[in-house]
Amino acid sequence: MVRDAVIGWDKARRGDRPLRVAVLGAGNVGLEVVRGLLSGWEGPTFDLVGVAVRDMGKAQAAGMPVELLTDAPAHLLADDIDVVVELMGGEEPARTLIAAALGAGVAVVTANKYVIARHGAALEAEARRTDTPLRFEGAVMGGTPVLRLLAEDLAGTRVLGMRGIVNGTTNYILGEMATRGIGYQDALAEAQAAGYAEADPATDVEGGDAADKLVILARLASGVWLDRDSIATRVPDGQPGITGVTAEDLAEATKHGYSIRLLAVAQRAEDGSIEAGVAATAVDVLAPISSIVGARNRVDIHTDRLGWISLEGPGAGGHATAGAVLADLAALIAGHGSTWGPMPPAASGVAQALAPAEWFTGPSGARYPVVR
Amino acid sequence: MVRDAVIGWDKARRGDRPLRVAVLGAGNVGLEVVRGLLSGWEGPTFDLVGVAVRDMGKAQAAGMPVELLTDAPAHLLADDIDVVVELMGGEEPARTLIAAALGAGVAVVTANKYVIARHGAALEAEARRTDTPLRFEGAVMGGTPVLRLLAEDLAGTRVLGMRGIVNGTTNYILGEMATRGIGYQDALAEAQAAGYAEADPATDVEGGDAADKLVILARLASGVWLDRDSIATRVPDGQPGITGVTAEDLAEATKHGYSIRLLAVAQRAEDGSIEAGVAATAVDVLAPISSIVGARNRVDIHTDRLGWISLEGPGAGGHATAGAVLADLAALIAGHGSTWGPMPPAASGVAQALAPAEWFTGPSGARYPVVR
Repeated sequence: MVRDAVIGWDKARRGDRPLRVAVLGAGNVGLEVVRGLLSGWEGPTFDLVGVAVRDMGKAQAAGMPVELLTDAPAHLLADDIDVVVELMGGEEPARTLIAAALGAGVAVVTANKYVIARHGAALEAEARRTDTPLRFEGAVMGGTPVLRLLAEDLAGTRVLGMRGIVNGTTNYILGEMATRGIGYQDALAEAQAAGYAEADPATDVEGGDAADKLVILARLASGVWLDRDSIATRVPDGQPGITGVTAEDLAEATKHGYSIRLLAVAQRAEDGSIEAGVAATAVDVLAPISSIVGARNRVDIHTDRLGWISLEGPGAGGHATAGAVLADLAALIAGHGSTWGPMPPAASGVAQALAPAEWFTGPSGARYPVVR
Repeated sequence: MVRDAVIGWDKARRGDRPLRVAVLGAGNVGLEVVRGLLSGWEGPTFDLVGVAVRDMGKAQAAGMPVELLTDAPAHLLADDIDVVVELMGGEEPARTLIAAALGAGVAVVTANKYVIARHGAALEAEARRTDTPLRFEGAVMGGTPVLRLLAEDLAGTRVLGMRGIVNGTTNYILGEMATRGIGYQDALAEAQAAGYAEADPATDVEGGDAADKLVILARLASGVWLDRDSIATRVPDGQPGITGVTAEDLAEATKHGYSIRLLAVAQRAEDGSIEAGVAATAVDVLAPISSIVGARNRVDIHTDRLGWISLEGPGAGGHATAGAVLADLAALIAGHGSTWGPMPPAASGVAQALAPAEWFTGPSGARYPVVR
């Protein structure tokens, strides 16, 4: 009933006038997106009406035009705008602002994996209720269009499962440990010094970031929003993410023909349920995903009609993520609607634990599922 | 003027009634597409009105319903249909039938790389003139949606260049030669016996098939239909495709850290022209594309905003190509129009020869461009 009363965003907003865009957040990604919009990217299609930032002095010093800046994002939303680009990150106020925008028929483009992984089901329901696009390609694989691939390009096939290296920080650390024989703490400290890992690295190294991305990938692959809390980031009795991986485990794995990778895996079980989880995994070195080095990402997708197809690209970086955000804005103009494209409304579900058929046990006693 | 007089396919044909589909050709791919349509794939959206085949007895024996069969494709087109699925292969009568369909406002889905590589510019012009969709995802990488990735998902980025292994037959032969130390003629004979190579293998082994696919990839990557005749399939003074590769060359390349691959390459030169060609190439074994084995395909795409992104998948096979054709039909229903999506009309152009900076010379005297 409500849906019938709302005029679709597509019909109401897309016309000959430029779309009025507000950007929330001016970190690396926000700065690049604002630069893209101000440089006339895509022609006179967008009108940047304001940028909400936490620190106006800092944003001005970074080259943001002062007349666009505000420190009151909610006021910006009260303006007559068509699209909100949310790049603040974190849970609040991002979630509330996204929901409010969708409720008011204002399209949202975001790269906020934390919010989408936890509130995706509710936000999708709100977007569908008001017929307003919600796009979040930048949330996974920073710019490499894996979500569009799943939602649109693979229409006509059924995704049976997927596995991915979706966190560049941990892949970089594991690579340094393996090639140089150094321990986890040393590799982490170096990654922090080099800017590959954050001062508080827990979200990356404990697997939470990969689990967020897995929830989002599974939505597009399987049509189900998995409860984020149901995604394990360790094997039973194991340490979270890569925090239990030792240099000795890596050396022994190499002898057995494995590399250790933080893998995010989701697959449909025979009973129709979805098994999903994130774990440090022993990957056969002959499997192409084993060859992903540094901060790059790769997702292997198992389909019924096409067998395995794989997409590789940059894992993160402000430049790539800004590219994803701009591509999402272009997709709005092209009338592509939400990131889930032509897919039917998602169900909600709980992930079942993965049940590996084979394990590798390292000298530390840590157990790693084996993937070939 | 003509364009204004024609009602767009999209508006005229898409309604609540099923789309009337005719299939031309009933080889492996055609059979699978017909089975997909008859099995009610995508619900009651399609009405299969006829299948044109060369040999009606054979088609009937393969399980085609006799009441759908005809050996007169032109008559089938004269029926009141909305979509032609052209799977006859070869130049004529395929080209004439595709052009006639587009001229009459009948959408076309084809996997015919030969026709699209040579007549793509004219067929695109005709499709645009009558506002009728032309889709050909199945022509390249048999089902792996690389064309959609280029045309739609990478909107907002600029493709600077690409390199690909796009012919599975030659990659399989080179792999067998390298791992088993056998000669080209032996490997070819085995590939033919195993069904990986055709009785007349020239199109594959001499690089013509890869050149066809390169023309199509370059259209989506660069917005230019390159003259097919301008694509070299050998280096100067070299043998075409992989026909000059010897077991000794492969062994020596391995010692230098290279694998030999038939690579299709296109890139934008500084003066704006497009350099493109197909050649047996010495690829650094550390480059991920070097790890592609058997009949699989991979394309590495160099973009401004996202750096390098890569897509891997099955190179061919009736099952995968049929999947691409069905996905194209689904895309028509979803209103996606032609394979070039939102891209502006293509220019026509001539490929300049690639100018490798580095060469590897094998014991046979053959020269291979080096790619890292």
